[in-house]
Amino acid sequence: MSTALVILAAGKGTRMQSDLPKVLHKVAGAPLLVHAMQAGQAFEPERTIIVAGHGADLVADAAKEFDPEAEIVIQEEQLGTGHAVQQAQAALQGFSGDVIVLYGDTPFISTDTLEKMAEARKAHDVVVLGFEAADPGRYGRLVMNGAALERIVEYKDATEAERAITLCNSGVIAADCQTLFTLLSRVHNDNAAQEYYLPDVVALAVADGRSATAVTCLEAETLGVNSRAQLAEAEAAFQARARAELLELGVTMAAPDTVFLAFDTVIGRDSEIEQNVVFGPGVTIETGARIRAFSHLEGCHVSRGAVVGPYARLRPGAELSEDVHVGNFVEIKNALLGEGVKANHLSYLGDAEIGKGTNIGAGTITCNYDGVFKHRTEIGPRSFIGSNTMLVAPVKLGAETMTGSGSVITSDVPDGALAIGRAKQVTKQGFAYKLMDMLKAKKAKQIKEAE
Amino acid sequence: MSTALVILAAGKGTRMQSDLPKVLHKVAGAPLLVHAMQAGQAFEPERTIIVAGHGADLVADAAKEFDPEAEIVIQEEQLGTGHAVQQAQAALQGFSGDVIVLYGDTPFISTDTLEKMAEARKAHDVVVLGFEAADPGRYGRLVMNGAALERIVEYKDATEAERAITLCNSGVIAADCQTLFTLLSRVHNDNAAQEYYLPDVVALAVADGRSATAVTCLEAETLGVNSRAQLAEAEAAFQARARAELLELGVTMAAPDTVFLAFDTVIGRDSEIEQNVVFGPGVTIETGARIRAFSHLEGCHVSRGAVVGPYARLRPGAELSEDVHVGNFVEIKNALLGEGVKANHLSYLGDAEIGKGTNIGAGTITCNYDGVFKHRTEIGPRSFIGSNTMLVAPVKLGAETMTGSGSVITSDVPDGALAIGRAKQVTKQGFAYKLMDMLKAKKAKQIKEAE
Amino acid sequence: MSTALVILAAGKGTRMQSDLPKVLHKVAGAPLLVHAMQAGQAFEPERTIIVAGHGADLVADAAKEFDPEAEIVIQEEQLGTGHAVQQAQAALQGFSGDVIVLYGDTPFISTDTLEKMAEARKAHDVVVLGFEAADPGRYGRLVMNGAALERIVEYKDATEAERAITLCNSGVIAADCQTLFTLLSRVHNDNAAQEYYLPDVVALAVADGRSATAVTCLEAETLGVNSRAQLAEAEAAFQARARAELLELGVTMAAPDTVFLAFDTVIGRDSEIEQNVVFGPGVTIETGARIRAFSHLEGCHVSRGAVVGPYARLRPGAELSEDVHVGNFVEIKNALLGEGVKANHLSYLGDAEIGKGTNIGAGTITCNYDGVFKHRTEIGPRSFIGSNTMLVAPVKLGAETMTGSGSVITSDVPDGALAIGRAKQVTKQGFAYKLMDMLKAKKAKQIKEAE
Repeated sequence: MSTALVILAAGKGTRMQSDLPKVLHKVAGAPLLVHAMQAGQAFEPERTIIVAGHGADLVADAAKEFDPEAEIVIQEEQLGTGHAVQQAQAALQGFSGDVIVLYGDTPFISTDTLEKMAEARKAHDVVVLGFEAADPGRYGRLVMNGAALERIVEYKDATEAERAITLCNSGVIAADCQTLFTLLSRVHNDNAAQEYYLPDVVALAVADGRSATAVTCLEAETLGVNSRAQLAEAEAAFQARARAELLELGVTMAAPDTVFLAFDTVIGRDSEIEQNVVFGPGVTIETGARIRAFSHLEGCHVSRGAVVGPYARLRPGAELSEDVHVGNFVEIKNALLGEGVKANHLSYLGDAEIGKGTNIGAGTITCNYDGVFKHRTEIGPRSFIGSNTMLVAPVKLGAETMTGSGSVITSDVPDGALAIGRAKQVTKQGFAYKLMDMLKAKKAKQIKEAE
Repeated sequence: MSTALVILAAGKGTRMQSDLPKVLHKVAGAPLLVHAMQAGQAFEPERTIIVAGHGADLVADAAKEFDPEAEIVIQEEQLGTGHAVQQAQAALQGFSGDVIVLYGDTPFISTDTLEKMAEARKAHDVVVLGFEAADPGRYGRLVMNGAALERIVEYKDATEAERAITLCNSGVIAADCQTLFTLLSRVHNDNAAQEYYLPDVVALAVADGRSATAVTCLEAETLGVNSRAQLAEAEAAFQARARAELLELGVTMAAPDTVFLAFDTVIGRDSEIEQNVVFGPGVTIETGARIRAFSHLEGCHVSRGAVVGPYARLRPGAELSEDVHVGNFVEIKNALLGEGVKANHLSYLGDAEIGKGTNIGAGTITCNYDGVFKHRTEIGPRSFIGSNTMLVAPVKLGAETMTGSGSVITSDVPDGALAIGRAKQVTKQGFAYKLMDMLKAKKAKQIKEAE
Repeated sequence: MSTALVILAAGKGTRMQSDLPKVLHKVAGAPLLVHAMQAGQAFEPERTIIVAGHGADLVADAAKEFDPEAEIVIQEEQLGTGHAVQQAQAALQGFSGDVIVLYGDTPFISTDTLEKMAEARKAHDVVVLGFEAADPGRYGRLVMNGAALERIVEYKDATEAERAITLCNSGVIAADCQTLFTLLSRVHNDNAAQEYYLPDVVALAVADGRSATAVTCLEAETLGVNSRAQLAEAEAAFQARARAELLELGVTMAAPDTVFLAFDTVIGRDSEIEQNVVFGPGVTIETGARIRAFSHLEGCHVSRGAVVGPYARLRPGAELSEDVHVGNFVEIKNALLGEGVKANHLSYLGDAEIGKGTNIGAGTITCNYDGVFKHRTEIGPRSFIGSNTMLVAPVKLGAETMTGSGSVITSDVPDGALAIGRAKQVTKQGFAYKLMDMLKAKKAKQIKEAE
């Protein structure tokens, strides 16, 4: 059966105290909205409709970055969840299949849970996602009769008996597209807030003789984000789960609480991640690599046997082959380091390709930017780049080349050649004594004058 | 009404295992004593008397750094809190108004609480600060009769009924200056410890027909520091509260627990603070700035749109204008970076002023110290400083200047000029082959000889 | 009395999901096995027998690194703890004294506990280590009769009454060597797992009229490691204890949870360790030193009054004398820094000796590696090394020498001399204007062509 996701993402999120629309705040490096879209992939949806409002352009950009085929509809005024879903009706004109309503600020609903909803839909016209609340508070309650969901009652309208129910409404709902919009057209806003409530479709469906049911998930899956503090809690929940998964897979982390993972971090078995390592999006670490303390990685790949850090920064496009060593205070960006390359100290390698076995001396810099253009540096295998070599790109060094420390390399260097550019050392006897005496005398004079 | 703070700060703090007086240990970058003095500002005190003892000189220095008008009196022997307060009597000779007694090792009493005490003083002669203790243990108990405080009873002197009281004495007390010292002169030390107890003034006041009352605060506010572990707990309590306040204000922190704030850190709404950022004293971050992971900031200002880090260190006097980028392994000290300046890699900029739009190449260093003097570097707007440029201060580069990478700049550079100091690259064909062969042969010989 | 340790270390640790034998996974920088060996030193053992199996070669290497006299015996098949201990019998042929059985994956048994076992052995033939379990679950139970241990009953064989016992078996056992092996020869494997259980010796001993007893330790001491998550928990437990001990000793840590200690870290009183500091093995910090945030130390010594970091990396062989300052983005390896040396920014000092009072400019690098050999750099006292000086080792600078910034120093420099190697600055008027115009024109052309 075809499925269309309708993801509600129009809210401003006043309590976030932010100019950014709420659903664009990030957890583990991805916007909340993208987490929701990602979760929705469990249905292999044919269509994805994002109902945007506040900051709709930004919301559209984020949605399309994740899924270029996502469609954006606008909810001009925010008149309730039922009204929000109705904004998708025109876009889904002629669509035949199911609609699943998800929420852009509820990032953690699991694939398992959504698969259970799909399964339940085979036997019921309307499927609602509920959760057993530890403290049901003011959530809407699901009034069940065995497996049948009779209606969803708002807390304020609930009887004492209904308030004792702990199965609460997550807001997520699945139904046939046509059925859902037909039911929605009959929802009224004759309530205090003058809003159109999506949950009201359940009672309408049941009154029509349709069957409804509820699928239950963990309360943690329905965690919504309404403030920065809740955003931080959502991040912490994500991190705790992701770290536990990596430990389970056989990754060593001495202090898992200090390792920060992105939504898409991949780390192989028997790799070691030391304390205080931050992963941005797009990182893959092969089996048996070692990421040392205080390292920062984004958009890069680290192969088996490589050692990174401490204090190494791998930026997007860094590709480390097997047994590469990238050491302290070294930045790698958009650069391929061949097998066994060593860049151990205080270097910047950007827009470069470095052949296997080459040693990069401390303080080496690829001067890749001329103020307007970025240029590439190529270094052949088994070369030895002396300390503090400036590689003024575009420049190409062959295999087994060497550079003298302190050289500025502006011309290509053929295989096996030594390139050096260095003023001869001149040693001036007694000059340091004189200079220091002079400076100290000046200082003494200043002090005297100041008195 | 005029108010004088009397802050007791004479204790050694034996359990701290430290040569530093207890009240000088720091929380959030400020000595405990300064937190107490800061809290006391709620009364807008006309006089501040610090009763010092152990390490009195150091205590005096710290007190006067915060408030140059703070007065220090010495308690030679430590004969109890009553005795400590009496040391302030001579200094307050002729002072007309209230005295509030605070404690240098109790940093967290809130402004609200102290304002409540000031309010209560309008109706009562003596006001004591109490707290509802979760576990009252051996604290002194406040014996109330309605709103009237009858006396403070030491735990060891208390009846069973009195021990059941959970309202405990914080030690903080407010009274008219003359009244307080008159009462204190009647306090005896006929107790096991042979100490003069400040709380004894309450019963004496009541016996004289004066009125006493208690104001209640949170137990957490009365948290005293007696050991390194308690100091660490006080720090953690401070940090938790300060982080929560920033989240509330609309600052994004993915991992608030890894952000360390100083007592005076100011961060604007919609700024983002990534993981593992440390703020020393004196930092202000405007709205919409981004402080990336592993950054360290002290005494600096970061404007809107600026991006700092990862691994950036901003030292005192760093002033970043709008949209400045300071990147990895870059240290900025006492330097003004104009709008849009970029210093992205491996640089040290100290004692400098850099015009807007200028790009600082990787490895650039301001050589600001000659062994005796510090000198300034100035760079005009829209300049392009090549990688690994040494700027030997004092030196001045004009607008739209350029420097060749690897140059040592010792003379001023006029607007639009290119300055370069670089030995020509010499490429010696086959020389790297020969050098490496030679080294390897030497190694082989050594190995052979060693056998 | 002579004692032989028998440490069981043959397990694979399937749940670790690792190619590394379980006992070689590390806590606080040392393999679990080494923690167990270290604990066993409480007995001043004359012999140490490691029963290895999976990865026996690696296990042997680790054991001998800690104690070169450790003996390795191999358990080819894993047929139970009794069988494992029997593998040590041949090695202990003729040994007269006690055997203590410890476990390579149980790193935390305290010296106190083991001393209590040694004491108990004076009065009993067999001493078993037990613990009061908060949740006894499926642990074996110690059936006591007063001080006498009657037998150890496996959970599955236990009666309801026995299951109610909360004193559980840790597996650690002490007995006379000959007695133990005699008893073990009578242990059968007629159980579901077909394994030879070491605890069965207790009932056999009692049946022979020997006396057995139990010594009780904290449950935390018996914490075994079977998964990466448990390894991380063991690490956290170690760290919590080690941090608390340092606080107790008078070390200041504002955020102890962010300080990571090694098994052998030594830090003196009134030293300060800021946030996010990682200690590898082999570090000693004297009284009154300051380790600033984001520092990483291994195998080094820091003297009184020294300041390290932020972002300093001290590698093995770094020896910092009194009042040395090592600042941000500085790496020190195998180098002695004399009293008061300052190396504050962006430097690499390796294989070096630096005289007292010398100032190392920003960007200084010891070029200690020529591709094959490592060479040494020596700098005399009170010298001033200019920024970005390359010291091409082997090289020796005398006392009170200076180097010009940007110099490559290849020859020795005598006392009081200034060494400089620098191309003269050439300033080309208007050249920067031209260059930038040219680049911008090229860019404009490219953009036009692309349209």
